[in-house]
Amino acid sequence: MEPIVQLGTEHVNPALSDPALGVMNFLNQVAMQFPQAISLAPGRPPEEHFAIGATLPYIERFVREGDLTQLHKADRHGIDSLGQYGRTNGVIGGLIARLLRRDEGILAAGNDIVVTIGAQEAMCLCLLTLCGRPGDVALTVDPAYIGMAGAARLLGIDVVGVPCSDTGIDLHALEKTVQDLARLGRRARVLYLCSDHANPTGLTLSVSERRRLLQAAQSLDLLLIEDGAYSYFCYDTQPLPPLKSLEGGERVIYLGSFAKTVFPGLRMGYVVAGQRVAVAVGESASLADEMSKAKSLLSVNTPALMQAVVGGLLLAHDCSLRDYVQPRVRAIHASRDAMLAALDKYAPRRADGSRPITWTRPSGGFFLTVTMPRPIGNAELLDCAKRYGVTWTPMSYFLLDQSPSPQLRLSFSYVTPDEAAEGIRRLAAWMQHFIDI
Amino acid sequence: MEPIVQLGTEHVNPALSDPALGVMNFLNQVAMQFPQAISLAPGRPPEEHFAIGATLPYIERFVREGDLTQLHKADRHGIDSLGQYGRTNGVIGGLIARLLRRDEGILAAGNDIVVTIGAQEAMCLCLLTLCGRPGDVALTVDPAYIGMAGAARLLGIDVVGVPCSDTGIDLHALEKTVQDLARLGRRARVLYLCSDHANPTGLTLSVSERRRLLQAAQSLDLLLIEDGAYSYFCYDTQPLPPLKSLEGGERVIYLGSFAKTVFPGLRMGYVVAGQRVAVAVGESASLADEMSKAKSLLSVNTPALMQAVVGGLLLAHDCSLRDYVQPRVRAIHASRDAMLAALDKYAPRRADGSRPITWTRPSGGFFLTVTMPRPIGNAELLDCAKRYGVTWTPMSYFLLDQSPSPQLRLSFSYVTPDEAAEGIRRLAAWMQHFIDI
Repeated sequence: MEPIVQLGTEHVNPALSDPALGVMNFLNQVAMQFPQAISLAPGRPPEEHFAIGATLPYIERFVREGDLTQLHKADRHGIDSLGQYGRTNGVIGGLIARLLRRDEGILAAGNDIVVTIGAQEAMCLCLLTLCGRPGDVALTVDPAYIGMAGAARLLGIDVVGVPCSDTGIDLHALEKTVQDLARLGRRARVLYLCSDHANPTGLTLSVSERRRLLQAAQSLDLLLIEDGAYSYFCYDTQPLPPLKSLEGGERVIYLGSFAKTVFPGLRMGYVVAGQRVAVAVGESASLADEMSKAKSLLSVNTPALMQAVVGGLLLAHDCSLRDYVQPRVRAIHASRDAMLAALDKYAPRRADGSRPITWTRPSGGFFLTVTMPRPIGNAELLDCAKRYGVTWTPMSYFLLDQSPSPQLRLSFSYVTPDEAAEGIRRLAAWMQHFIDI
Repeated sequence: MEPIVQLGTEHVNPALSDPALGVMNFLNQVAMQFPQAISLAPGRPPEEHFAIGATLPYIERFVREGDLTQLHKADRHGIDSLGQYGRTNGVIGGLIARLLRRDEGILAAGNDIVVTIGAQEAMCLCLLTLCGRPGDVALTVDPAYIGMAGAARLLGIDVVGVPCSDTGIDLHALEKTVQDLARLGRRARVLYLCSDHANPTGLTLSVSERRRLLQAAQSLDLLLIEDGAYSYFCYDTQPLPPLKSLEGGERVIYLGSFAKTVFPGLRMGYVVAGQRVAVAVGESASLADEMSKAKSLLSVNTPALMQAVVGGLLLAHDCSLRDYVQPRVRAIHASRDAMLAALDKYAPRRADGSRPITWTRPSGGFFLTVTMPRPIGNAELLDCAKRYGVTWTPMSYFLLDQSPSPQLRLSFSYVTPDEAAEGIRRLAAWMQHFIDI
């Protein structure tokens, strides 16, 4: 037998023992243990719309029509120039700038955009560039996508939550948090949030809430990190203007992703970071340029072939993805409707007709939340998977402190309408256990 | 005009002001300023051998013949399953394990391999998992590829150098460094090095030096991070066994890259990390599993399409790349020979026939080093580019403290034999300035 090196716990980064990193593991284990269960857990786009075979030829289109001047020796080597080391911040910033102008009303220069390995790398770049000093704190709405807080903890950066729910972000708590930190000599640098159909709450901020948040950021000297992951997935209303496009938007760092609009396996995202940074007396650089230094040490480049797929796709669609994503928007919309209808039909009522269990009616996105009469967690999830054949995600997974919560997140993005209805029928049977007779 | 947010220096991570991050910038500026100069600077593989058009069909081969069981719903969606979120540590670990066994004599389990965004992400994963506590120190041979020390600094991890040259690593200094750190209550966790044709020194360790280094690692309780980036590029000798394949190799974390053997734009690398880690009393996990937690927060996944390119290529070549890389090995070998012949022919001699300027004769890899009579840096580089039309890299760029060095690094990987010869002819004219008459 080969000798084994056994490393003690003292050898390993304690951030890796963070319970937040274990919860997704538990969810995967449940999924593997009960493969026949209907999963209302994963926040994935449906594969039916990926059409990878039809997407790869966009590489050729980008090579024919794209701006390859940022690629080395592109004139001599055509497509092979995509194989070389390239510009750290990527080669499709200009096309993404046109996309942002058309689809989001965001005005950005191509040079202010860093093309990243999904939005996840973009979060790391924000944290590494902006929260790198002792006393720096990253704020995130709470609950939120766990990748932001997880990255902060991995990188040794303190993260503090600002309460939010499906009805809004608590701006009073935001102000108090920033002031409390300041009294301790610490500085809140950034606040991470999603303004449209947020994961996991489904929250969409109204335009007036967006304006109030921008004013708060201004008065608290805070940068906002706006995650636009779900901005295309509007079902009942027209898209609202992103924070980045509104007055005061210069305080916003915008994160984009092609995971939901094209497919996740591309690992294509970006960050818009045109803020100016003093780098020496009288000299400034763009935040995107500072981020490029960090990116050169994380991933060197975003794979140029993946950039070319998106670049060619944007060229072929005149730099708008609104029409391109319609089939999947319609599909997920239908699954949402089926899920809501099934909840109306199957969820338990009291004798007087009232509902002991409530749920949200999100106007878009991938998720809704259900509020149970008491906190639920792993034990209830396991029981529900085993006895009722349906899985979901406890809201506690998304809370910074993992505290018990009576809420759960249901995803309707990765199921057909029939699966959504059947999943809810099963879930409703499980819900009966929570009703006082 | 749009309002601008101006962030003071206190807002930005001071690690980004590290001069090491500026040097490559300077090199790029020189390259842009003098586009007609022959560049003996970049450590790039030649594009002539990328054949991207012929490489993309390997995706289909992987989908047909690869083990897709690690992909979600692969049975239902074929190639489209590559578009979904997938296993964090990747889906071609088993094929890479076969490659390592055939080409390197390394025995590894597929599950102990993390497929990464190039070797750069692998370095970050090593640092984040193993150097995450106060007092932890990463060691690197010095000079070395700057990506390792740069990543450590970006991540706030102290890095200390162990002197090395084209003749060897100073094991006495290694021992003293580790002991000195221990006396200060600090712990050297890892030592980064390249055992074959290292960047920038060209150093290849002999088998007995490898054994001595492994013994030192054992007695100093140190893990070695062995970077195999240039292992295929042997010109004069047979490949030597990697540290990882020798007795005591269980202390070695092996980093691999497909940047030089396939092409850099894939951003495909990997890390072999089968060490056991205590995660709780009586429980252990593999280091690869701990790394997966960190990877899930840096990049989520390595793009599955890029994995499929390499996976299909490995399937098509029975999991050996030795024959596949022969054309580029021969090409770079020829450029090395042309560069050495030109140095013999053109480099200045004293009246007595002796050489005031010396250079190395590496048995493989991409680089040789030249030792000048006095320290050289940016000023000399700029002058040489401007007046003689040839560029190179000052060795000081690769030193941890950026201290002045009389050495420079010449790359022969990205020039034809004719360009190598002409570059050296120009360089020799510049060298005349350094000769005392």
